[in-house]
Amino acid sequence: MKFNTQWTRNHLIGIEDLTASEINIILETASSFKKTMLRSNKKLPTLRGRTIVNFFMEPSTRTRMAFEVAAGNLSADVITITGSASSLVKGETLRDTANNIKALNADMIIMRHSSAGAPKYLSRVVDLPIVNAGDGAHEHPTQALLDCYTLRENLGDLAGRKVTILGDILFSRVARSNIWSLNKLGAQVTVAGPATLVPEHFRQFGVEVCHDLRKALDGADAVMLLRIQHERQNSTHFPSIGEYTRMFGLNKERASWLKPDAIIMHPGPINRGVEIDSQLADSDRSVILQQVTNGIAVRMAVLYLCMNAQERKDS
Amino acid sequence: MKFNTQWTRNHLIGIEDLTASEINIILETASSFKKTMLRSNKKLPTLRGRTIVNFFMEPSTRTRMAFEVAAGNLSADVITITGSASSLVKGETLRDTANNIKALNADMIIMRHSSAGAPKYLSRVVDLPIVNAGDGAHEHPTQALLDCYTLRENLGDLAGRKVTILGDILFSRVARSNIWSLNKLGAQVTVAGPATLVPEHFRQFGVEVCHDLRKALDGADAVMLLRIQHERQNSTHFPSIGEYTRMFGLNKERASWLKPDAIIMHPGPINRGVEIDSQLADSDRSVILQQVTNGIAVRMAVLYLCMNAQERKDS
Amino acid sequence: MKFNTQWTRNHLIGIEDLTASEINIILETASSFKKTMLRSNKKLPTLRGRTIVNFFMEPSTRTRMAFEVAAGNLSADVITITGSASSLVKGETLRDTANNIKALNADMIIMRHSSAGAPKYLSRVVDLPIVNAGDGAHEHPTQALLDCYTLRENLGDLAGRKVTILGDILFSRVARSNIWSLNKLGAQVTVAGPATLVPEHFRQFGVEVCHDLRKALDGADAVMLLRIQHERQNSTHFPSIGEYTRMFGLNKERASWLKPDAIIMHPGPINRGVEIDSQLADSDRSVILQQVTNGIAVRMAVLYLCMNAQERKDS
Repeated sequence: MKFNTQWTRNHLIGIEDLTASEINIILETASSFKKTMLRSNKKLPTLRGRTIVNFFMEPSTRTRMAFEVAAGNLSADVITITGSASSLVKGETLRDTANNIKALNADMIIMRHSSAGAPKYLSRVVDLPIVNAGDGAHEHPTQALLDCYTLRENLGDLAGRKVTILGDILFSRVARSNIWSLNKLGAQVTVAGPATLVPEHFRQFGVEVCHDLRKALDGADAVMLLRIQHERQNSTHFPSIGEYTRMFGLNKERASWLKPDAIIMHPGPINRGVEIDSQLADSDRSVILQQVTNGIAVRMAVLYLCMNAQERKDS
Repeated sequence: MKFNTQWTRNHLIGIEDLTASEINIILETASSFKKTMLRSNKKLPTLRGRTIVNFFMEPSTRTRMAFEVAAGNLSADVITITGSASSLVKGETLRDTANNIKALNADMIIMRHSSAGAPKYLSRVVDLPIVNAGDGAHEHPTQALLDCYTLRENLGDLAGRKVTILGDILFSRVARSNIWSLNKLGAQVTVAGPATLVPEHFRQFGVEVCHDLRKALDGADAVMLLRIQHERQNSTHFPSIGEYTRMFGLNKERASWLKPDAIIMHPGPINRGVEIDSQLADSDRSVILQQVTNGIAVRMAVLYLCMNAQERKDS
Repeated sequence: MKFNTQWTRNHLIGIEDLTASEINIILETASSFKKTMLRSNKKLPTLRGRTIVNFFMEPSTRTRMAFEVAAGNLSADVITITGSASSLVKGETLRDTANNIKALNADMIIMRHSSAGAPKYLSRVVDLPIVNAGDGAHEHPTQALLDCYTLRENLGDLAGRKVTILGDILFSRVARSNIWSLNKLGAQVTVAGPATLVPEHFRQFGVEVCHDLRKALDGADAVMLLRIQHERQNSTHFPSIGEYTRMFGLNKERASWLKPDAIIMHPGPINRGVEIDSQLADSDRSVILQQVTNGIAVRMAVLYLCMNAQERKDS
């Protein structure tokens, strides 16, 4: 893998900070890594002898595993710290915890945290590459990158493409990161769903806000569904799950409003029969599992690029 | 390690499906691996660059560790998912979870599940080798294989040997898998214990059902004790632990009814003073720890054979 | 790394057992390893193919991670067993658990346990190297070794140096291990803090017991602070956290009583504003994070030396 010297960041905090050309460097690097993933021995020696700490202060099996596999494919050692149960954080400040991780001779921190801004704060107070694996309702940059990768893989250039994000926009870091990346790559973004979950003020991010599902899906090249998080919702946002499905769940009829070749995306885990009809989730138009695989390639690219930038800085 | 091309299975779901000659291939492969385990550097490059997911939806430290060590000895990367706490399964179907694991670029799933049939179901809906690490009261095939390995190591050919399984047969997947494997290898199996835990209908599996301990042990070449699971039992199956020990616990006197060279087996963890007398567990006749070591060799063989069969299928 | 043949121990149970020259062998070996930690690829092939079990029956993220990183740097495989939740220990004796770990083909057990003496007991009943990672209020030998390493790194020879240990001495295994090592290396140890936490009978260990903070700090070359463990304390030992800080918390004024070049140590995690003033913790005199890094080097040395001694014994 030849390192692209135009890449200079040792942290990945959010998509908001990136230029379109930086996004392109990540996607191209991911594309090279995806080829190596098809071999039976997937291991590359790229990050051998580096220790990466998976620091997950909010539970996540899915994203944690994806980073673990990505780091393993690059031959890095991974140490996982999960939960508030961690004695590491007992009465200790976040900065002290991070400096302790650095002092343990770690080379990078992958961080998930329930507070928006925690990874950015950490990147300022500890001299170690920080990769944001999701912070509160703020950003989830590697999800947006894998979504862009999947969109490009299926649609080619995203300039002028209509992408509709449907569901709980208000509380979604996935939506926020995707709005940034899709805008930067020239796509036209529509956010759709009930008014309580898709507030008008999102227009300020340069997207169309639409509460009419037919208009939102009409002529779209791709629809990104968001998970309806039963556990986070309360009755003030929509009357019931059944009502949501009836009004905004994607089914065969509604999917016919999309462009003929349009793809259906979902960050997972999916609620079959809630935000998406079960058969539709298994149809040819669904690229949900392709997204998961691309998530490994994209994360390998992010780990590689940020680690390399740090080592160039240090040397 | 030369691959035995007569082996064609990419899954190991249960002993019921296997032929005697397939069982023999596993045991012979395990025997080769056992030799490599004696070296100070035990690592073989066999499965380097493959990712194996330990998917344990029912708690188990012991079996999980054994698979982890076996996979590590073969240089595979292991990712562990445990418990129902896993956010991976939050509202997601088992099939979706498995397809997500596959999409994460994993090469094999080792699965423990509280429902009988879960691994078989998975092997039908996901294109990935599935190894059953215990499903409900159905099968625990690698336990039966390590038991056969240990029996052979001590007794040679099993044809015509009398093996008695003693204890909670009714709820035991270990008993079920062992009945299949011992029958296939030509041993004569007796299941013994209180009538409430050893029902008559087991005769249909071609075993002798015996509630008289003396008759059950008399002339046996080996006795396999099963763990009395305090936590699963309720008062309807036997009056009390003390009563069980008094009636069916193996002690020095009762062990004298076995053949002079007979061996005593137990899948662990043992309850000293309950199903087995403490001194007897530490005696020369006990092969309990040998079983644990053989479990590594047998699992290395299973991982190697199933992965290899899958890669031949794919290529 | 050339093995120092004067080292013959396969266990590290406590500092009490070690001679000064054995401590020196560990510290010198650690010094060689520390150099390798500065490389971008930190991995040494030293313990490739060995399986080390992190057996933590008392929670600890910090020490567990340090051992995990140290073992990984030496290319060993690490299997972690934590908590009483472990099904491994369900009704099983500690000796049986350890013998099962050995039968799993493990090469070493690193053990943390809430009972003083548990690692020593284990080293007698299982033929496997045992490294004590903290046992009750008894010993925490690798902490004392990393503390000695850090003291030497900053002060040179410890003979005649005054080292003050301040805080909850009564319940501290860190204090006990440090008293042994500092005495053996010729330092003069003062233990200080409230009379309820620093009992007179510690004089029998050859240390000065001092309840006057000024006298305790005056002319000291180093002060080791101990964590005030809110959770363990009860009202009988001191009136309140605030009172402790007012009487014994280290602040700028009190630090001025130390020698001009004296260093400030803490095993972490620190309670800023309780046992140490926040600014002081970040000052040049604080070597708290240096201690963490040295903990990796020292643990690499311990793993290497004990494993090597075992393999010489076995061969």
